[in-house]
Amino acid sequence: MKILLIICDGMGDRLIDGKTPLEAARKPNMDFIAKNGITGIMDSVGPGVRPGSDTAHLSLFGYNPFDFYTGRGPFEALGAGLSLRKGDVALRCNFATLQNGKVIDRRAGRDEFGLEELANELDGMEISGTEIIFKKCSGHRAVLILRGENLSANVSDTDPEIKNAKPLISKPLDRNPDSTKTAEIINKFTQKSIEILGDHPINKERTKMGKLPANIILVRGAGIQTHLPPFNHRYKIKGACISATTLIRGVCRAIGMDIIGVEGATGHVDSNIGGKANAAINALKSYDFVFLHIKGTDEASHDGNFDLKKAMIERIDGEVIKPILENRKDVTIVLTSDHSTPISIRQHSADPVPIAILGDVRTDSVERFTERECAMGGLNRICGIHLMGILLDLTNRAELFGA
Amino acid sequence: MKILLIICDGMGDRLIDGKTPLEAARKPNMDFIAKNGITGIMDSVGPGVRPGSDTAHLSLFGYNPFDFYTGRGPFEALGAGLSLRKGDVALRCNFATLQNGKVIDRRAGRDEFGLEELANELDGMEISGTEIIFKKCSGHRAVLILRGENLSANVSDTDPEIKNAKPLISKPLDRNPDSTKTAEIINKFTQKSIEILGDHPINKERTKMGKLPANIILVRGAGIQTHLPPFNHRYKIKGACISATTLIRGVCRAIGMDIIGVEGATGHVDSNIGGKANAAINALKSYDFVFLHIKGTDEASHDGNFDLKKAMIERIDGEVIKPILENRKDVTIVLTSDHSTPISIRQHSADPVPIAILGDVRTDSVERFTERECAMGGLNRICGIHLMGILLDLTNRAELFGA
Repeated sequence: MKILLIICDGMGDRLIDGKTPLEAARKPNMDFIAKNGITGIMDSVGPGVRPGSDTAHLSLFGYNPFDFYTGRGPFEALGAGLSLRKGDVALRCNFATLQNGKVIDRRAGRDEFGLEELANELDGMEISGTEIIFKKCSGHRAVLILRGENLSANVSDTDPEIKNAKPLISKPLDRNPDSTKTAEIINKFTQKSIEILGDHPINKERTKMGKLPANIILVRGAGIQTHLPPFNHRYKIKGACISATTLIRGVCRAIGMDIIGVEGATGHVDSNIGGKANAAINALKSYDFVFLHIKGTDEASHDGNFDLKKAMIERIDGEVIKPILENRKDVTIVLTSDHSTPISIRQHSADPVPIAILGDVRTDSVERFTERECAMGGLNRICGIHLMGILLDLTNRAELFGA
Repeated sequence: MKILLIICDGMGDRLIDGKTPLEAARKPNMDFIAKNGITGIMDSVGPGVRPGSDTAHLSLFGYNPFDFYTGRGPFEALGAGLSLRKGDVALRCNFATLQNGKVIDRRAGRDEFGLEELANELDGMEISGTEIIFKKCSGHRAVLILRGENLSANVSDTDPEIKNAKPLISKPLDRNPDSTKTAEIINKFTQKSIEILGDHPINKERTKMGKLPANIILVRGAGIQTHLPPFNHRYKIKGACISATTLIRGVCRAIGMDIIGVEGATGHVDSNIGGKANAAINALKSYDFVFLHIKGTDEASHDGNFDLKKAMIERIDGEVIKPILENRKDVTIVLTSDHSTPISIRQHSADPVPIAILGDVRTDSVERFTERECAMGGLNRICGIHLMGILLDLTNRAELFGA
């Protein structure tokens, strides 16, 4: 019995005019899983804890984020295909536009013209004896890796996150001298980025073309690369990840899952989710555990677009869940979400998510896959950190504790 | 969105003739909250843990009592308006009556004649280099504070808790020499209380008046004053407490909440609970978080009086919940209890309490605020320590963990 874990990012919600998007959507295939499986609600990290997608996924894979999470940086770096060494500090970066000391565009107009070349100018420097690795990722995004002795991830961001604000000074967030040192390196790097990018011919060309110059690097989400016990060893199953989201691919790479690429998978509402479903069906032939991640539901939520979220759920139902059910064979299917992203607040919330498991389970009387109906289900309310144990048990893989 | 937390002390119960007091009572306003909100059951400290009111409230405010609780003494002292320093050991005391070596009345006839003067005789002594602070509180109650170096709260009580027993010798409860020292100080203090109070003119006068002499101090509930991270800093909200119960006011003072006094609020079944409701409605104008505590339900429970408890619930429904619902504006209302105090056993039990939250919540099909119906609610079964996180999340104040 194999395991297919389907996570629709940010799918849980609160009520809008008396209904959640899951309640408003027509989704016979998701409801089939609820009706024929066991349901419940789940706090991915813990009751009342508002999770990020990274901390939520770590927890769902059985890695307590309170032990293992230091910041998003390393997962972004790994997800972008970079390699990290233990002790590296990684930060997520934006190419941005600085004018008269203020950040007038945090994304340099979202225009990637010449950014590869600019990234190369910053890559390979050394600051205070620390190696600087700087790589462009998709769009205006990049990753900064600090490699050296005595670094810390407990430093603040330089990205002001709001428009027309000054870039921030990175500060140590504790009294550890490593944090002071790391913040200083980040601030020197920021200065270097202004000096090197400001006069660069690429930016002269961008300006001539009517584009915003990419003349500063803003950093955020510092994290330190630590050892995560590999998923395959830990659970004695071979796991694969199908996700188009850099951060989520990074979490999966960090725990040693294989990453399966799918053409046309974008991580947006327009993604080729049918192709991802096919990839999952195929992957189940060679993997014990397949994790299928779909991001569009979260994107629609952050946009506050109820109809788009409802439509995305219906599309997942028809293009993902339907073919998976049709091709189901010796597989326990889990349908859930990493966290709620209520349309009304456009950000993650701690409201528990619905979960349904189709397999050798004690079925319950719940007939529809919604937040409120699953709350009445046979699983009751569970914690994300326990999910892997429950799935290993339901597929008769769990080790006996005791005699 | 503000938060109003209403705690009816000891309101949860077990069945008497097939019904709990909450099931027997007519309480349309409490039921309105259940019907239009989300419901559940809650273990204030943990499943199977029989909580005191102090440990339960600490937990409900998000302070794990297993980390922060050493005894009720400091909360009684703070609730009585005394000031404590870190390291002070505080104990709750009774003026009592000793006759032929036995405690014939643990409360000296509940008569406070002259007790203030007697307390002054004991206050300000020094025993083994430790400062003795002794203050009369309401009725026959008092607080003893030991201030000095190397004290411990891990010592036993001298109050035998039963009638016609000898006063107990305080003993160290571990091998820490500080505990041995503290127990010795307490025993010396007890001796001093017998010597000083025994021949005191006040007691001669009491006897002449036909009252029992107050000729010994019994102590219990030693606790050591520790630092509790302030509520306002921790949650970034301004909190106020409305309670007439010294112990509960003490818990709230310990975490830095403001205490709002209400005329006629007694902490008994005859309390001016309507006045407390009004105070809560007013406090919501200037506080983000208002905690309203009503004690009468617990008192009726300790008396084993089903009809009185039922009547108290009905009075709370009409005099507290009704005006609060009528004046509701931008407030998330939480109705619950700190623990169950079943009529049948007249003491606290670990039975979970019902909880209902009215606000931006996923409603459920529960229509009445009772122990058994709320057990079917959408919150399922939660732990008290998670309540603050859930409330911060529902009012969109929770911090994001991760990205």
